Amino acid sequence: MLDINKAIEALNWDKEPRGLYEPIAYTLASGGKRLRPTLVLAAAEVIVNGGLINGDAIEQALPAALALEVFHNFTLLHDDVMDRATVRRGRETVHVKWNDNTAILSGDQMLIEAYKLLSDVPADKLPKVLKWFNEMATGICEGQQLDVDFEHASQVSIEDYMHMIELKTSVLIANAMRIGGYIAGANENQQEALYQYGLHIGLAFQIQDDILDVYGDPKTFGKAIGGDICCGKKTILLLSALENADAETKAELLQWLMTTDQNEAKIAAVTEIYNRLGIREKCEAVMEEHTSLALVQLDRLPQNDATDRLRVLAEQLATRKS
Amino acid sequence: MLDINKAIEALNWDKEPRGLYEPIAYTLASGGKRLRPTLVLAAAEVIVNGGLINGDAIEQALPAALALEVFHNFTLLHDDVMDRATVRRGRETVHVKWNDNTAILSGDQMLIEAYKLLSDVPADKLPKVLKWFNEMATGICEGQQLDVDFEHASQVSIEDYMHMIELKTSVLIANAMRIGGYIAGANENQQEALYQYGLHIGLAFQIQDDILDVYGDPKTFGKAIGGDICCGKKTILLLSALENADAETKAELLQWLMTTDQNEAKIAAVTEIYNRLGIREKCEAVMEEHTSLALVQLDRLPQNDATDRLRVLAEQLATRKS
Repeated sequence: MLDINKAIEALNWDKEPRGLYEPIAYTLASGGKRLRPTLVLAAAEVIVNGGLINGDAIEQALPAALALEVFHNFTLLHDDVMDRATVRRGRETVHVKWNDNTAILSGDQMLIEAYKLLSDVPADKLPKVLKWFNEMATGICEGQQLDVDFEHASQVSIEDYMHMIELKTSVLIANAMRIGGYIAGANENQQEALYQYGLHIGLAFQIQDDILDVYGDPKTFGKAIGGDICCGKKTILLLSALENADAETKAELLQWLMTTDQNEAKIAAVTEIYNRLGIREKCEAVMEEHTSLALVQLDRLPQNDATDRLRVLAEQLATRKS
Repeated sequence: MLDINKAIEALNWDKEPRGLYEPIAYTLASGGKRLRPTLVLAAAEVIVNGGLINGDAIEQALPAALALEVFHNFTLLHDDVMDRATVRRGRETVHVKWNDNTAILSGDQMLIEAYKLLSDVPADKLPKVLKWFNEMATGICEGQQLDVDFEHASQVSIEDYMHMIELKTSVLIANAMRIGGYIAGANENQQEALYQYGLHIGLAFQIQDDILDVYGDPKTFGKAIGGDICCGKKTILLLSALENADAETKAELLQWLMTTDQNEAKIAAVTEIYNRLGIREKCEAVMEEHTSLALVQLDRLPQNDATDRLRVLAEQLATRKS
């Protein structure tokens, strides 16, 4: 099996001017789950092992896998500037270690580097892959903008929220799957199954993220519990609570959300309201529904080792602790 | 002839979320010379009129022309954030009218929109066009970083400067020419001639920019004269002066460059030193050399109306007043 970490390490950033490329090398060396490139390659493997349409398909899918990982890290780099985040994966963010301008310009170059990697996709597959990649990149920017808009919006429905996380998280994962499969020779039915699998695990992944932020174990979660509650982020938990609460509980909840000087009490009180309303169970049910919808898609695909791994992955994402 | 302004106006930005697309519409509606897309189409015309290899070539070159204009405006949008510029083409810059985060995110989306336009290039031409587009985009980012590095560098040679402006300005214009010609069916020799023409008019254009900043007519130049002198920018004029001055004049020049509280006197004194050293003539000679090198390339191409227009354009750029 292709080692995606080695392939990422092998990318050459030893170029001039150093001020442009060092922050790119730094960002990509900081690790992370490498979920997106792994999915591109897994999708290619499902198809190849199922029909051996194209023996070099895994190798051919590698540039797209790398492009998606570089793209994902570009979004983190620019997001960290916009969110004024100071730490990412245990290290200083680029705009802190260098400065804002460096983060903007090296981020721009990273986005271009993603397209450079993409240009190594086999020529006959390039037009569609480029189109899907652009669709995905657009989804991320639109989702990011909606996330910003939601901060100031007085009314956000769970439907709005699901649309936002679909754009911000799922469309990337869905396209990772579809692109990997397409390069390996997937037919349209298979492409659609791979896309839908990615869409649903992406949604489940994001919902689980929201749940862990409240109910995660501080020892394994890796960041402070209750961050979303503190800043009043419109997560699926909060939106469900607002939809399910009676007038009195809703007033109580809104009162706490406006409190900014008692974080510990705020987290405890809001969590208690969530418990009273059974919010965790409600959100877990939505998440499990999407996990099921993802798993069903796998039945439309060739059955082999790679398909089994995707099955395990969907279940792991839904039960993960960090 | 295709009206590039109408084609730019016809791009649809009436999409959600408004916060993402409004700044893009605003940026593209602010006018500008539309030099780059005009060159893409002119290059295509040279080839088509010369051989009628592909009758739809001008139409087929349009997506690439639009992609280059959107890309160019993306670079201005992010540059304005980095330079803290408040006015562009007589209007507030995006980060002033909205905020920094909007300028970053809408700029990112603009870069993606450029690639979306590019994906409409005919499939058989796409791999090469994408490769050249990426090369060009990389050149711009590298040139921008070098420009930043030069601010703090103690030693910058004229050669360093020429390398920087080649990346920052010329590579875009050169690729505009090459891409337009290639889509229209240019052979390799013609592609190279178009590329070299673009490279040299780009260099001449940038040198003239530096000259006008000191010697332009305030009535026609459109911005204040002496801006580069005030901020001590390492233009070709300053670098030539430093290379040509004797020890005493050099000390005088450096003394003035360190002065930051007497802008009018500074501009007058530095200009006087330039006059004494004949800097204007030296720089004009370099510019004219590149204009000649550009014109020579046109002799390698089919001779028609479009070639004549490119001839006039090269001469206009070298004698322009604004």
